[in-house]
Amino acid sequence: MARDLRDLSLCAINTATLGFQAPVEQVIEAVARAGYGGIAPWRREVEGRDVKAIGRRLRDARLKVLGYCRSTYIPASDRAGFLANVEANRRAIDDAALLGADSFVMVVGGLPAGSKDIAAARAQVADATGLLLDHGKGRGVKIALEPLHPVYAADRSCLSLLSEALDICDAIEGVTASPWLGACIDVYHVWWDPNVKRDIARAGAANRIFGFHVCDWLVPTEDVLNDRGMMGDGVIGVRDLRAAVEAAGYAGLIEVEIFSAKNWWKRPMNETLKACAGRFATAT
Amino acid sequence: MARDLRDLSLCAINTATLGFQAPVEQVIEAVARAGYGGIAPWRREVEGRDVKAIGRRLRDARLKVLGYCRSTYIPASDRAGFLANVEANRRAIDDAALLGADSFVMVVGGLPAGSKDIAAARAQVADATGLLLDHGKGRGVKIALEPLHPVYAADRSCLSLLSEALDICDAIEGVTASPWLGACIDVYHVWWDPNVKRDIARAGAANRIFGFHVCDWLVPTEDVLNDRGMMGDGVIGVRDLRAAVEAAGYAGLIEVEIFSAKNWWKRPMNETLKACAGRFATAT
Repeated sequence: MARDLRDLSLCAINTATLGFQAPVEQVIEAVARAGYGGIAPWRREVEGRDVKAIGRRLRDARLKVLGYCRSTYIPASDRAGFLANVEANRRAIDDAALLGADSFVMVVGGLPAGSKDIAAARAQVADATGLLLDHGKGRGVKIALEPLHPVYAADRSCLSLLSEALDICDAIEGVTASPWLGACIDVYHVWWDPNVKRDIARAGAANRIFGFHVCDWLVPTEDVLNDRGMMGDGVIGVRDLRAAVEAAGYAGLIEVEIFSAKNWWKRPMNETLKACAGRFATAT
Repeated sequence: MARDLRDLSLCAINTATLGFQAPVEQVIEAVARAGYGGIAPWRREVEGRDVKAIGRRLRDARLKVLGYCRSTYIPASDRAGFLANVEANRRAIDDAALLGADSFVMVVGGLPAGSKDIAAARAQVADATGLLLDHGKGRGVKIALEPLHPVYAADRSCLSLLSEALDICDAIEGVTASPWLGACIDVYHVWWDPNVKRDIARAGAANRIFGFHVCDWLVPTEDVLNDRGMMGDGVIGVRDLRAAVEAAGYAGLIEVEIFSAKNWWKRPMNETLKACAGRFATAT
């Protein structure tokens, strides 16, 4: 049965939704005060700061830390570049552990400069995922592959389909009751996929759903990167996808992640937090 | 073995590539004079004109007419709207026959206004395709479903994957040696798909490849609709995909279709035609 999202303890805020208007300490306080159960912070808010202190603040605020966003892009033109990217991600996973994050979110990157070989880029992603899974296990941080909408295949994520992410998981980790490797499912990226419900069921059966992100696809979309909509304002069957994810066994928090340069990022944090709460209840 | 595309008789120009700068008669003459073997015209150039006369001109120019572009969008909010869309497409298929077009290209449309149900839109597309196949057979015009990049799923094509198009074909027409229903494969729409080679082989085995369209995906892409690149200027492995299509048995013309508001559409037709010829030889 679908959960009642008027209970904000089931809901989390990806800090990007608030437009990075304030230091993370203030964001943490605002999200906690608004009653949310969780948060997903970004490296840009954390790196170069006292990460342990931010972790303490998150625990004091009693916010569950879901995914830590996000990986340095993996594919590189040569082996040295690839290894440097992997190493940067190991350091980010160390920070994810200090923050108490459940998972490290991998947005894997597109084609290296000058390449026309997307299959080769994907092979690098699979290799890196294996290396980072080992590191994540050692730190107690899960690895969450996030397939991105195919519009980003060239420059942000050569991993497009949920089925691709699951294939990588199966190839690396095999069948296990308590996987460390899984996927984030973001409605923005997967809503159009005719196989998405099949793949959600597959992911759930393998306990590989590590996150469920909501927003909406506006018509028209003026900018495919930073013109996402609030749940209910677009064409995605958000409730239908949430039902599929919950039917597949997902019992974790539901996270709102809205990149919206022209609308939500221009509003005060508390206004956006209030709107999210409303739309969790009515349109998610 | 890959064909030698220095032979322009193997190549066709989709007239949109030339930016609709001149009446179709002049476009036909320019394309034929440049040595191309074929052409794919648009309804905006033809409707309301003397279609028979345009057909004669095409035959006189000894240009093969590939796909006639394109269908009225199918999905509608109610049955009357759906039937009106089907009827508009029947009239366009009549024109395709007068032009001597090999196929009618179906860009199927996205979600009806107010809908969040992409599955329902897809069901309308499958229904309409069956109706239009009957009409096409009667006129001697094949029906070519063109899956579009998922970035257009909301507003231009709820049909995104080549596999979806082939599923519709199989469901309606079944297995037949000489199908009337098939798919257009445009590299811009399918290049990112991890299953594209599997699906190209499937399409070829069923003789369902009715067209192969080339261009390139620029990085960055400033406008997902009208900022396509010339073959070689982007990240698509065009030669690799052409090899897959030819290995699958496709022996038809290869068509260049570039929507490029900021570059190629601003150039004189003959300059763009010359550039296409060069890139057919070196980057296709």
